[in-house]
Amino acid sequence: MERIYELTDLIDKDLKDNSLGETEREKIAAELNGLLPEGSIVLAQVNPVSGYVEHNAKKAARWIEWANRLKIDAVVFPEMYLIGYPIGDFIDRFPVVVEENVEWLEALAGLTGSVKVIIGFVEINKQKTGKSYYNSIAVLAEGKVQQVIRKSLLPNYAEFNDYRHFEPAPVNSASRIVELNGKKAGIIVCEDGWNDFGFFDKNLYKEDPVEIVVREQHPDYLINPSASITRAKKEQLKHNMLSFAAKKHRTPIVYSNQVGSGECLSFEGASRVYDAEGNLTAMAKSYQEQFFVVYPFNPSGKIYPLPRGLEKTLNSQKAFTLDHEPDLERTYLTIVQSIRDYFKKTGFRRAVLGLSGGLDSTVCAVLLTDALGAENVLGISMPSKITSAESKNDAKELAENLGINFAEVSIKDMYEATRKKFDEVFADVDKKWDCRYKECFTNDNIQARSRALILWGIANEYQATLPIATSDKSELYMGYATINGDMSGGFAPIADVTKTKLFALARWMNEKREKKNAIPEAIIAKRPGAELAINPKTNKPLLAEEALMPYEFLDEVIWRVENLHQSIGDMINAEFRYETKEKISHEQKMQWLKKFFRRMSTSLYKWSIMPPSPIVDARSINKAEYRHPIIASKINFNKTSLEEKFQMLKNA
Amino acid sequence: MERIYELTDLIDKDLKDNSLGETEREKIAAELNGLLPEGSIVLAQVNPVSGYVEHNAKKAARWIEWANRLKIDAVVFPEMYLIGYPIGDFIDRFPVVVEENVEWLEALAGLTGSVKVIIGFVEINKQKTGKSYYNSIAVLAEGKVQQVIRKSLLPNYAEFNDYRHFEPAPVNSASRIVELNGKKAGIIVCEDGWNDFGFFDKNLYKEDPVEIVVREQHPDYLINPSASITRAKKEQLKHNMLSFAAKKHRTPIVYSNQVGSGECLSFEGASRVYDAEGNLTAMAKSYQEQFFVVYPFNPSGKIYPLPRGLEKTLNSQKAFTLDHEPDLERTYLTIVQSIRDYFKKTGFRRAVLGLSGGLDSTVCAVLLTDALGAENVLGISMPSKITSAESKNDAKELAENLGINFAEVSIKDMYEATRKKFDEVFADVDKKWDCRYKECFTNDNIQARSRALILWGIANEYQATLPIATSDKSELYMGYATINGDMSGGFAPIADVTKTKLFALARWMNEKREKKNAIPEAIIAKRPGAELAINPKTNKPLLAEEALMPYEFLDEVIWRVENLHQSIGDMINAEFRYETKEKISHEQKMQWLKKFFRRMSTSLYKWSIMPPSPIVDARSINKAEYRHPIIASKINFNKTSLEEKFQMLKNA
Repeated sequence: MERIYELTDLIDKDLKDNSLGETEREKIAAELNGLLPEGSIVLAQVNPVSGYVEHNAKKAARWIEWANRLKIDAVVFPEMYLIGYPIGDFIDRFPVVVEENVEWLEALAGLTGSVKVIIGFVEINKQKTGKSYYNSIAVLAEGKVQQVIRKSLLPNYAEFNDYRHFEPAPVNSASRIVELNGKKAGIIVCEDGWNDFGFFDKNLYKEDPVEIVVREQHPDYLINPSASITRAKKEQLKHNMLSFAAKKHRTPIVYSNQVGSGECLSFEGASRVYDAEGNLTAMAKSYQEQFFVVYPFNPSGKIYPLPRGLEKTLNSQKAFTLDHEPDLERTYLTIVQSIRDYFKKTGFRRAVLGLSGGLDSTVCAVLLTDALGAENVLGISMPSKITSAESKNDAKELAENLGINFAEVSIKDMYEATRKKFDEVFADVDKKWDCRYKECFTNDNIQARSRALILWGIANEYQATLPIATSDKSELYMGYATINGDMSGGFAPIADVTKTKLFALARWMNEKREKKNAIPEAIIAKRPGAELAINPKTNKPLLAEEALMPYEFLDEVIWRVENLHQSIGDMINAEFRYETKEKISHEQKMQWLKKFFRRMSTSLYKWSIMPPSPIVDARSINKAEYRHPIIASKINFNKTSLEEKFQMLKNA
Repeated sequence: MERIYELTDLIDKDLKDNSLGETEREKIAAELNGLLPEGSIVLAQVNPVSGYVEHNAKKAARWIEWANRLKIDAVVFPEMYLIGYPIGDFIDRFPVVVEENVEWLEALAGLTGSVKVIIGFVEINKQKTGKSYYNSIAVLAEGKVQQVIRKSLLPNYAEFNDYRHFEPAPVNSASRIVELNGKKAGIIVCEDGWNDFGFFDKNLYKEDPVEIVVREQHPDYLINPSASITRAKKEQLKHNMLSFAAKKHRTPIVYSNQVGSGECLSFEGASRVYDAEGNLTAMAKSYQEQFFVVYPFNPSGKIYPLPRGLEKTLNSQKAFTLDHEPDLERTYLTIVQSIRDYFKKTGFRRAVLGLSGGLDSTVCAVLLTDALGAENVLGISMPSKITSAESKNDAKELAENLGINFAEVSIKDMYEATRKKFDEVFADVDKKWDCRYKECFTNDNIQARSRALILWGIANEYQATLPIATSDKSELYMGYATINGDMSGGFAPIADVTKTKLFALARWMNEKREKKNAIPEAIIAKRPGAELAINPKTNKPLLAEEALMPYEFLDEVIWRVENLHQSIGDMINAEFRYETKEKISHEQKMQWLKKFFRRMSTSLYKWSIMPPSPIVDARSINKAEYRHPIIASKINFNKTSLEEKFQMLKNA
């Protein structure tokens, strides 16, 4: 057993760097062929590039070549692999991409022999009725496209847009059976496997393709080629569901997943096998490409451990918690993979970010270092007159600890030049408009925007360099971020991480990274504040919690909105974790809740212009998942009674 | 006839400003009741606010109150009126909005008597299977919700996302019949009426609800409450289709549309009636709310003229044209309505924009003036050392002609202060990174970003003031716009208007606006350029066409991409309009085409952070309609042959 995986590790390396000679390859193949049980298949856990069909096809060719060397039945690629998931809307606007993916499929078929290649692609719908395409799986063998299986259940919620482009196929169970060396494998395409009427309380679709295929065809096992993203608490759901279905149908399930990140969506791999009792019997690596050999009937295959955060996150957590620890390794790996793949797939190599000595930029710097290498990260300290000596020192110390490039440049002169022009132009505008604010954020924002100006200048001047937006999720909900300032950048690593979780992540990284305690303790210990303005009451830089509300309270509101879809009424009646420690009045709580929804409603514009960022949480405000019209800013989140409504209408 | 519409004009005014006393209202109602044929109904052509259910309900109450004064059978509101279309995803995240819309519906029912109220709302799906909601039409009368009709065909393409949220209802023809004073009206909900198998070459859905309702129920007429946006060339399609269906089924069709703009989507109203021969017999105003009385069997109702651009735009235009004139009035009205409603619905009143003396900012200034009033527009000339005296004078003359507020402030000092800091920091970065560009846009961008800094400063300092992004569609395709510079703002009025069309629009406005020739001829006459850099060859400011390609060619590429979905191969073989006048070599053409797709592929990030903007063209790159993953930047738009693919795989 272990030897098989030692050998396939060599194959993985060869697939990555083409490092083996033909003789070595034959040697490995010969040894593996002696070890593999008859009926083995390979799960090709691969990382495609959206729309870059040539690249995906060439990669597939190399994996198929390796599969052909082995006496196995099949190699299974993920759903939509060839076109590269996610697809956005480009297949509708640019049909040439789909035509190309069909031709590349035929070209790949030319490479096949007895090993069957099961691979996702976009099929053209030639009927007069329905959408233009099917989301299909092709079976290639003996030089030809042998068979095509069409997906039936088309998810169209959150990050899924299948029904935007694809025609749902009626469940034709016979068409889904692939003969693999005398065994019957039933093909289930991702969402097709997620509608068990026994498992879910509420089902999205009227049919369960798994049940139909098993009942009508009695397959020996099921294969599910997927492209399913990681999210907080999703692994436990996935595990429970697949295990439930395998056991219920007394049929092993082979689940093959994509790996890598496509902009906002991250796939963790962890392809796997469940036996007919619902036991997990094999599992691939997470966050890595892998040529993963499995024998669907092996009672004890190799199970690579899941990173913490995948294995036990669901544990029926129904309440908000500050114990973020169980999800931190997954969060870390997801963001690091996202940064790395985003840069790689868009052709960027270097990142530049402002280092304020605060938590957000600090966590971003560590994640960037681990994703891109310290030599490719440039942290810039850009003090203004409000910036404290401590902040400057903390930033510098952090950069030294991480070994990243560091520079310091004062924004005082830029601020002064801008402020002078503002005075000039405001004096002029005052003659025309009588609506000047008494208090406003003009000066705060000059600082944030001058800093972004420097970062974008560096991106203009140096090749393949991208500025980083450091806004976090708690602050984005509150609109506590400056347009063309800290929220501006080519990528926003922590836009789906709340503040309380960021503190936990900082501590976790200090403990778990090879270089311990890279983050100076002072940064974690200090209370967050943008250092853009002075609080007149304390005469010190204004703290974020003074401007907003306690982060612990704020993060629970966010959690309740995203996970429980609660209104103000629901929340005022629920006990918050914060309330178990601090006594707050009903009025104070209501004030914070109203403030939350008021600020959220005027932050929608900011959400709409946020740079791309990785989805991490169970739910997010990432544009790939959630869209809220900016004009929908007057929603009443606090229910009124029917009687009140009658009265309001009478007075309308 | 005319008297009826004189009287309903008074009702419209009263609904807007509550200007009539009770006696006057009764007088109008009495006179109208003497004039209206039995069986008249009212089409409530209204402008809802997304998510602002209380506002929509109160408005409905006032319209229902007026309907109750008249001896009519029914008042028909648009699809999804009560919740306010568009909805984005907020109904899933915030179910309280849907609960509130159901309660407001009940409260409205309390106002009803014998006049039936036909009104769109979001219905909760209480079944265990399917999506959470239905897109439904309620019939209210005698104090109660009498009947609910559920939409069957759920569009999910371009700007439509119905299937994201709604469960499609099987076509239950009996449930769709509303008894109106002895006549049977069949309710068709928007897309339900857009799947005629005789009219369309290709159909999206398997059933035609119109055909089913007519065949099974023999209604006397059909009513279609809609929320259907305006687009170039859509009116002709809509007219032909509705006329075709009415004639085919020998059944009058009453089509009731929403009016007003919801962020990116604009509804033009123009509600109407077709008789059983397919003749248009009545049509409401365009781009205005209207209490529109129709009698479905009246052979000659009032037909308000459509603005130019609505009435004859389809005319089987299969080729690119520079004759934009037929669509200019519609374009103008759509953008003006969009600006006005976006500001109103988000609570803004004033706009500030940079006036460069170029075409983009000029056209924006005129549109803003007409949407918000000259007193609410502030144009700022912000010259740098490259800015010519002509540009400054043109900007000033424009502002004077428009009567808008004007200020001038030099950005030279800001530029110098920034440039100095850049030199400092670049000297430092040079020690670390050996990847500085030989030529780049750093200096160009400092200018554009300093200007945006001033505009956002004014927005920070003055109440309810929004900066305007002036980028046009041609330049956005080319990425010829500065991040945090000219493409930054709270709204982007002309992001869906190509450059050649902008020239035409400028001339049209000079001719058609009350104040003639507000745009100085010099602005229209000069060739576009950003005035950010000097062309070393000419020693004059670099022209956009020198940096890109001729606008006439560029705009045809865009047209072919959006309307014909063509690849490079398709276009190289087609004759461009530009080629009929200028001889260009095959190599030159190929170079421009490749440049287009290369630049487009690296502009995707810019598209993703664009401010909200009105959809105007038949197809757009507006985020509400088209999403292209930024990482999908390596699509090959130039097909390779199957043989080439085989070779590439062999060498993979």
